[in-house]
Amino acid sequence: MCKTVQTLQSPIQMISHLSEQVITTYEKISNIVHHTPVLSSTEFNLATGSNVWLKCENFQKVGAFKFRGACNAVFSLTESKAAKGVATHSSGNHGQAIAKAANIKGIPAYIVMPKNAPKVKIEAVKGYGANIIFCDSNQKAREDTLARVVDETGAYFIHPYDNKEVILGQATAAWELLHEHPHLDLILTPVGGGGLLSGSILAIDAFKSNRKNTNCHVMGTEPEQANDAYRSVQTGILQSLSPEQINNPTIADGLRTNLGELPFSIIKAFKTDIVCVSEESIIHAMRYIWERFNIIIEASCAVPIAALLEKKITPKYANIGVIITGGNVDLDALPWNRH
Amino acid sequence: MCKTVQTLQSPIQMISHLSEQVITTYEKISNIVHHTPVLSSTEFNLATGSNVWLKCENFQKVGAFKFRGACNAVFSLTESKAAKGVATHSSGNHGQAIAKAANIKGIPAYIVMPKNAPKVKIEAVKGYGANIIFCDSNQKAREDTLARVVDETGAYFIHPYDNKEVILGQATAAWELLHEHPHLDLILTPVGGGGLLSGSILAIDAFKSNRKNTNCHVMGTEPEQANDAYRSVQTGILQSLSPEQINNPTIADGLRTNLGELPFSIIKAFKTDIVCVSEESIIHAMRYIWERFNIIIEASCAVPIAALLEKKITPKYANIGVIITGGNVDLDALPWNRH
Repeated sequence: MCKTVQTLQSPIQMISHLSEQVITTYEKISNIVHHTPVLSSTEFNLATGSNVWLKCENFQKVGAFKFRGACNAVFSLTESKAAKGVATHSSGNHGQAIAKAANIKGIPAYIVMPKNAPKVKIEAVKGYGANIIFCDSNQKAREDTLARVVDETGAYFIHPYDNKEVILGQATAAWELLHEHPHLDLILTPVGGGGLLSGSILAIDAFKSNRKNTNCHVMGTEPEQANDAYRSVQTGILQSLSPEQINNPTIADGLRTNLGELPFSIIKAFKTDIVCVSEESIIHAMRYIWERFNIIIEASCAVPIAALLEKKITPKYANIGVIITGGNVDLDALPWNRH
Repeated sequence: MCKTVQTLQSPIQMISHLSEQVITTYEKISNIVHHTPVLSSTEFNLATGSNVWLKCENFQKVGAFKFRGACNAVFSLTESKAAKGVATHSSGNHGQAIAKAANIKGIPAYIVMPKNAPKVKIEAVKGYGANIIFCDSNQKAREDTLARVVDETGAYFIHPYDNKEVILGQATAAWELLHEHPHLDLILTPVGGGGLLSGSILAIDAFKSNRKNTNCHVMGTEPEQANDAYRSVQTGILQSLSPEQINNPTIADGLRTNLGELPFSIIKAFKTDIVCVSEESIIHAMRYIWERFNIIIEASCAVPIAALLEKKITPKYANIGVIITGGNVDLDALPWNRH
């Protein structure tokens, strides 16, 4: 569905071309996005054996880092393109993020949502003044409906991760974190479609170009039950979720998505490692963060925390940053009550 | 139990004498306490009709503002007094706060706890290296046991709120908030023993002495089901919880305590208003903050939020700060699952 990867001369050239744009991206959106706080805990450091800083994107607008990418995509459009509005399909954070960004920009947003989407998410999108177009709850219906909406309105489709401007927007979370904590050895993110992970790679690359004395690495973390990014990195070929992984989905619902082509190009070029964790360890890590940090995080955010608590990250990294991706949780369906 | 109020020449003299000490208190403990972040939300502002900033003391060390007071009390002791250690009785945040502060100072702490205290709280106090002395679960047993411990060890008893240094420590939360948001018209706090409310009064008074252009007020908020501070202010005489309020306690368990004498002197001298809210509105407000801010707050913190959401605060205040007091919650006993 409209997945277009730019023709590239070489992966390294592509990255340096993209990473050069991180600074201008940050200049463009820094007055619109929240500069989110960074939290740490002595007890958590003792438990992990590293100094860990949590970049709290669960306090971002719409409660998730997704707002950064949506915001950059919306504010990067030419005025004539923007005038016709923006469109996407989403039952999750990306739809809210596009709706909110379009609302701030003062342009129409068309969000295709499945009929059975949670009422609270429908209300949130409505609250940002977006047009909601309901469809059946399957991928084909979503894509067909979106194609029709784009055709009828001329709105610009913003993909949740296979989009250069979205990736650059996501890069600004790691960019902010590195400026506050330039001594970091490693940044950990979850990986679903790969927008945040590839954006974080670009941020570090841009930071290195500016400050020669940093040697920060980046690593993706993924549920074993949705390990398509891990398999893609291992084989060098873009993989999808297996039928078993689709029928028995991970608790980390934000990561139940196939890795995108553009994010994979960046991840591959940078030889980025992916670490996988079990469902049980994700639930344990989620509750651990709720109890120790007093913050609400989604199961998807708990994936890098699980990797740290399970000691799956090599101890050579003394100072670690983690992007806490979002906090939109149904309080009536907490995973420790369901398992 | 060791409740000593200083002999005062006049209430106003007392306040100005105490408020002069806020700056030196902050200088003393600012490198030990966390400078906690402040959060806001457009949706919450729309819901309340004011611009509201939440000072997140649920991210303070031990997860509660209580660490500020405990820290100042411990670090204000002379070296000879400190050497014998500190003692208190507590089944809540104050015990953890004293244990942690003593641990940082490197002196012994003796915490009297009821036998039936939650295991997680016992483990936390142990984790800070404190000595725990168990007693029966009633006020007399707690006080008798504490008196024996103080007698045997020579440790210095630190009352949770009827203590000048504790109140000055609590003042530093509002002090930080005012420096970041000097345009505030009002600061709201919950009131239990009154340490935080009276401390916030001192902070504003100290701030006014430094910056003549501020006109910030302070107001206490209290559950109807524990309205002893409200009744004390109305009658001008220190009141206690009624038998009905003791037998049918508020969900805001941190506020199930009688107003202290020293805090009341300050509250009375400053003619501070107290606003009361229902149990139902506290539970609603607690869940509202969890969902909108993605932070975990105790029921006690939700009391000022309830006052705002119920429009019980006069609309003349456009810019309001709220001290979010703590986030130590049993995730297996959330109030919306119990009611």
